[in-house]
Amino acid sequence: MASRAGARARHLGEPAGAPLAVFGCGLIGASAAAGWSAAGHEVWGADRRDLAPLVERGWIARQVPVEALAEAGAVLLALPVGGILGALRRVPFRAGQLVTDVGGVKAPVLGAARHLPVGVTFVGGHPLAGSAAGGYEAASPDLFRGARWALVGDEAGCAAVEPLLRDLGAESLRCAAEEHDRVVALTSHLPQLLATALAAELEARDEPLAAALLGPGGRDFLRLAASGWSVWRDVLEHNRGAVEQALEAVRGRAAAPPAALEEEFLAAQRFMRRLLQNST
Amino acid sequence: MASRAGARARHLGEPAGAPLAVFGCGLIGASAAAGWSAAGHEVWGADRRDLAPLVERGWIARQVPVEALAEAGAVLLALPVGGILGALRRVPFRAGQLVTDVGGVKAPVLGAARHLPVGVTFVGGHPLAGSAAGGYEAASPDLFRGARWALVGDEAGCAAVEPLLRDLGAESLRCAAEEHDRVVALTSHLPQLLATALAAELEARDEPLAAALLGPGGRDFLRLAASGWSVWRDVLEHNRGAVEQALEAVRGRAAAPPAALEEEFLAAQRFMRRLLQNST
Repeated sequence: MASRAGARARHLGEPAGAPLAVFGCGLIGASAAAGWSAAGHEVWGADRRDLAPLVERGWIARQVPVEALAEAGAVLLALPVGGILGALRRVPFRAGQLVTDVGGVKAPVLGAARHLPVGVTFVGGHPLAGSAAGGYEAASPDLFRGARWALVGDEAGCAAVEPLLRDLGAESLRCAAEEHDRVVALTSHLPQLLATALAAELEARDEPLAAALLGPGGRDFLRLAASGWSVWRDVLEHNRGAVEQALEAVRGRAAAPPAALEEEFLAAQRFMRRLLQNST
Repeated sequence: MASRAGARARHLGEPAGAPLAVFGCGLIGASAAAGWSAAGHEVWGADRRDLAPLVERGWIARQVPVEALAEAGAVLLALPVGGILGALRRVPFRAGQLVTDVGGVKAPVLGAARHLPVGVTFVGGHPLAGSAAGGYEAASPDLFRGARWALVGDEAGCAAVEPLLRDLGAESLRCAAEEHDRVVALTSHLPQLLATALAAELEARDEPLAAALLGPGGRDFLRLAASGWSVWRDVLEHNRGAVEQALEAVRGRAAAPPAALEEEFLAAQRFMRRLLQNST
């Protein structure tokens, strides 16, 4: 185990054995910690919660205070976007460290990272995985297996993070922050908002038959509505313009007169065919 | 087989051995035919397409012309809503027959059924099952296993249809036409419309990373967008008022300012918790 961790750490330009630290051990952070520990890394966890259960499971080697993050070789900020922005301002990162995050919106994070001390390498990250259930109770070392993980950073930074993503079974996808945020407004943020809005409308209408008259397609559509506000508050706030634009575009298409709707169905089917081809 | 079919037919007030006929042998009709044949019924199929492949599979006993539907004990109209309305006007149903349908909107169908000859029992039906793929190629005798199947009709009519639904493994749910249409505007028609509109927007934007940046939640949200226009044209046309009202309500909630969005997330999570409790 120690030698594998050493081999990995050298990818990051760190002395052999420099540990990985995960700041925020909820669903995403604890899953990454678990996967990295399973791959032979020494992983530290920092969180307001007591992480003794994660030490017991072998998912982290030990819980450390936030100040100790400066001693890690690489740090994953696995917090809501607001927490990531705060950590980038307040944690005393030092030259030679690799810092990355998991926030669902990237331009504000990359903007804040510009103020890190010289010599700290920052790479923005966004794993396309998750679950409506939060907390380390829902975590799994396999959460990222087969999932894409967007990376925003320079060549050297991305090349340093990618071996860590491979250790989790994730597939890295390099992109620009603005492109990422524009696209996820449609592929992630608007679906979240619409699923939440429909479930809230169903809750308000209080129709006794609503659950009984939900077929498999409607249930899939609504699945994201179980997600909690704490993560989404920051994402929706920081990508508000793109999400509002996406909402109005989709509403306009949905409200099209019947004669124009046929075109929408045909275009949608073309997209879905390409999507299925991409997945296989 | 013949004796089981006879026993079933007597549920419908028909002479022993009177066959079931399925008008429209696409995904839904062929799946019902397959399930009923497997349960021992004699099933006839009527369709513009050649149904020889269904005879070969043993899913129907034979293909019959539309005129022969009058000789069946019970007839399932498994067509798009426009086709159901046309069949109710044009097929020469006769007293003693049980006629039911699978249309996704019920008030217009029940309205048209009022003009059936005296002695024809009509029960509106709507199976909460399906697949984006259409045609009998995608059919399965198990499509309805565990699915709910809404029924709109009087006590005797519903009681006559229910044994047939049990033969398919479906669970009947009696409701009123107006209640059904109001609820499915939210649980089925609006999800279809929004998934289609989002996929059409993604197709129009032509973002190279759209497929790569679709996580599991976004993919589930979009799944309905593969559905074809031919079925949905009629449903959306005939339930247009309720769907437009649902669209504006959901859009209003989604466009709420951040301070109000927290309430939407909390209400949505309450609905999803109740939904999960109902499912188990």
